[in-house]
Amino acid sequence: MTDLFDPSQLNEQAHRVRRAARELARQPGALRDDALAHMADALRAHTEAILSANQADLEAARANGLEESFIDRLRLSPERIEQMASALDEVRALPDPLGGYDEMWMRPNGLQVAKKRIPLGVIGIIYEARPNVTSDAAGLCLKSGNGVMLKGGSDAFASNLAVVTALREGLQKSALPPEACQAIGFVETRQREATAHLLTLSDAIDVIIPRGGKGLIAFVNQHSRIPVIKHDEGVCHVVVDGSATPATVERVVLNAKVQRPGVCNAAETLLFTRSALNEHVPRCLRALSQAGVRLHLCPASAAIARAADIDFIPATDDAYAAEFLSLELAVRVVADLEEAIAHIDRFGSRHSEALLTESYAQSQRFIDAVDSSVVLINASTRFSDGGQLGLGAEIGISTTRMHAYGPMGLKELTTTKFVVLGTGQIRE
Amino acid sequence: MTDLFDPSQLNEQAHRVRRAARELARQPGALRDDALAHMADALRAHTEAILSANQADLEAARANGLEESFIDRLRLSPERIEQMASALDEVRALPDPLGGYDEMWMRPNGLQVAKKRIPLGVIGIIYEARPNVTSDAAGLCLKSGNGVMLKGGSDAFASNLAVVTALREGLQKSALPPEACQAIGFVETRQREATAHLLTLSDAIDVIIPRGGKGLIAFVNQHSRIPVIKHDEGVCHVVVDGSATPATVERVVLNAKVQRPGVCNAAETLLFTRSALNEHVPRCLRALSQAGVRLHLCPASAAIARAADIDFIPATDDAYAAEFLSLELAVRVVADLEEAIAHIDRFGSRHSEALLTESYAQSQRFIDAVDSSVVLINASTRFSDGGQLGLGAEIGISTTRMHAYGPMGLKELTTTKFVVLGTGQIRE
Repeated sequence: MTDLFDPSQLNEQAHRVRRAARELARQPGALRDDALAHMADALRAHTEAILSANQADLEAARANGLEESFIDRLRLSPERIEQMASALDEVRALPDPLGGYDEMWMRPNGLQVAKKRIPLGVIGIIYEARPNVTSDAAGLCLKSGNGVMLKGGSDAFASNLAVVTALREGLQKSALPPEACQAIGFVETRQREATAHLLTLSDAIDVIIPRGGKGLIAFVNQHSRIPVIKHDEGVCHVVVDGSATPATVERVVLNAKVQRPGVCNAAETLLFTRSALNEHVPRCLRALSQAGVRLHLCPASAAIARAADIDFIPATDDAYAAEFLSLELAVRVVADLEEAIAHIDRFGSRHSEALLTESYAQSQRFIDAVDSSVVLINASTRFSDGGQLGLGAEIGISTTRMHAYGPMGLKELTTTKFVVLGTGQIRE
Repeated sequence: MTDLFDPSQLNEQAHRVRRAARELARQPGALRDDALAHMADALRAHTEAILSANQADLEAARANGLEESFIDRLRLSPERIEQMASALDEVRALPDPLGGYDEMWMRPNGLQVAKKRIPLGVIGIIYEARPNVTSDAAGLCLKSGNGVMLKGGSDAFASNLAVVTALREGLQKSALPPEACQAIGFVETRQREATAHLLTLSDAIDVIIPRGGKGLIAFVNQHSRIPVIKHDEGVCHVVVDGSATPATVERVVLNAKVQRPGVCNAAETLLFTRSALNEHVPRCLRALSQAGVRLHLCPASAAIARAADIDFIPATDDAYAAEFLSLELAVRVVADLEEAIAHIDRFGSRHSEALLTESYAQSQRFIDAVDSSVVLINASTRFSDGGQLGLGAEIGISTTRMHAYGPMGLKELTTTKFVVLGTGQIRE
């Protein structure tokens, strides 16, 4: 970790990670788990040093006039550090994603062919203010046998440095090569230049995972010479059909919008088929309005709101395309399920969409026709999350259509190599 | 297909593929298979037109003074066109890679979570002289439900146009949207500019697969804003231990080097552990020399060659790093298996490596420690091929460490989406 950007030093650092990653990939799971235990211990032992570094970042952020929501993401506390350490413990407790054979088959000439799980190699994580990403990402990458280059934001420089110092001290006590986990960060103003250079190191880094706002994602996508697995915005839809049970509709719609509106798997648009118009629209609009949700309504739903004296503003195409990340919601009445699917095709971001229905045929059609990474029937979009879906942990939600599409856990940080066992076969 | 490069026209074309691909993804396998049958029929029916277009390309290539090997790759014949049609028939006969559920599990709250196979979306294939890539790639992409943008080389412009015209005529007779398969090509000199522009269309194209020489791969990697699955060079190794059976050693070493030296899975370096020095080196060198192989020898193997009056040149690091693609081979005697693994780490391209041994411990160590996409024990590197490994067909051999690492078949042109079946669950 340095405070000056030097391209040749960055190249050298990336290749040190590459070499260490090759060592790391050959270590058994028990040694990787042991390293995670030491890393968690070291985080706890360094709590004071991390908090004091974080204090410096917070003061600088205030002096620089950064927004309170930003400062909140940056802020650590003894409890948050304990959560970071516990998260490492939880990742450690997960099954080893490496070494197993996914499949094995026999060829007519007697060759046995198998696909064995191996790490992706070296993963570059590019993120913004949250210092907990440093330990979360390091833990997931090392558990899955990958080397990791961590590039945090300059506003969290001191915090990230303190966290990485602790993590590497933990690694030093383990059998793993500490060089497999490296952070780069710069207090100076050449951040973007450094990030752009990192994104060219395709012989040292295998995959880039950016975590942050739209600006960061766009910058990474523009400059990367390395495959990028994006975690893009979530314009998530809940579609309500007339056949859905009222209890499910009210529970799920409210949960999807209100339980935590600032996250990517919260609902941003609610679609009703015409069959739901009388049965569900009035009740939903009232419940949402009472929950403090600002409603952007299409003409058909607006007529109902007007009759029931519910406040709203007219919906526009911009509202249908918006990722509000707040207590705002677009609502549209469509003719039928096909029109709902067409709306999602046009405005959605292929993240997560839910259909509430009691129709078997509709459920099958929605599952087949909707192109998103997570398709839910009679459940809240808020379940689109690695932990909730049972992946154990999550490094992000991929909206890139590669092997990882949707929530990404440890398995998505691995690939397979072919193992071929013969008895002297040659190709004729 | 046009002969003038117009960025806005290219954008529009890519988005037509994107829209058609969404339709295509929703078609059942029987309709996709029917389309492949029509495409094969149309290729056969258009044989004369394709040959005459090809003749024009060949004459231009000769007039431009292109190399004979290039002209050979460009040349079509009635037999080659029949092979292209048969290849479509073979792909059609493969099982549908879509629609199945890879896994399904239950969460403690009763949610059922599954991963369903879906297409990647739109695949961009960028290739050089071989017109058969046009139909091979189109067949594999459509069978797996993907839209495809085909960008062939300008020297094969007329041939590709004729092939695509036939394929789309076949598609017109099927229920699939013909727009899902589009070719772009330009007779003018702004090829690279057009390719570079195509590589920026990340909202229309999901994955780029380049097929061609180093220059093409490097160009694509440099300009792409879309994840690239590379098929890079193959510096493949065969490692021979003293414990290997003489019959296996001679058969496999010769096959790996001599059977088809111009392809990426041919062996380029032969490593002997010291234990193989007396048992295997003399016989192998003699057999290789008799087969016309030009030997680049390390000092220890050179001493044996000198004693046996076998011609050689001294090996250099450049020879160890070379992808000869011809009857040349580097040979090195290393201390033991660990030194062989270190040599492969340093000089290999992580494509395919074989170990010949009768030692159980060595076989396990080699499988675990060698980082390549295909690791073989007692079999020729020439088996590193989708057809040979039983994938049914191959769109390339990935040396990018993504979900596809090694030979890529239909399954590697798909991903999964999460399907979540609930009964009204919400997130607490």
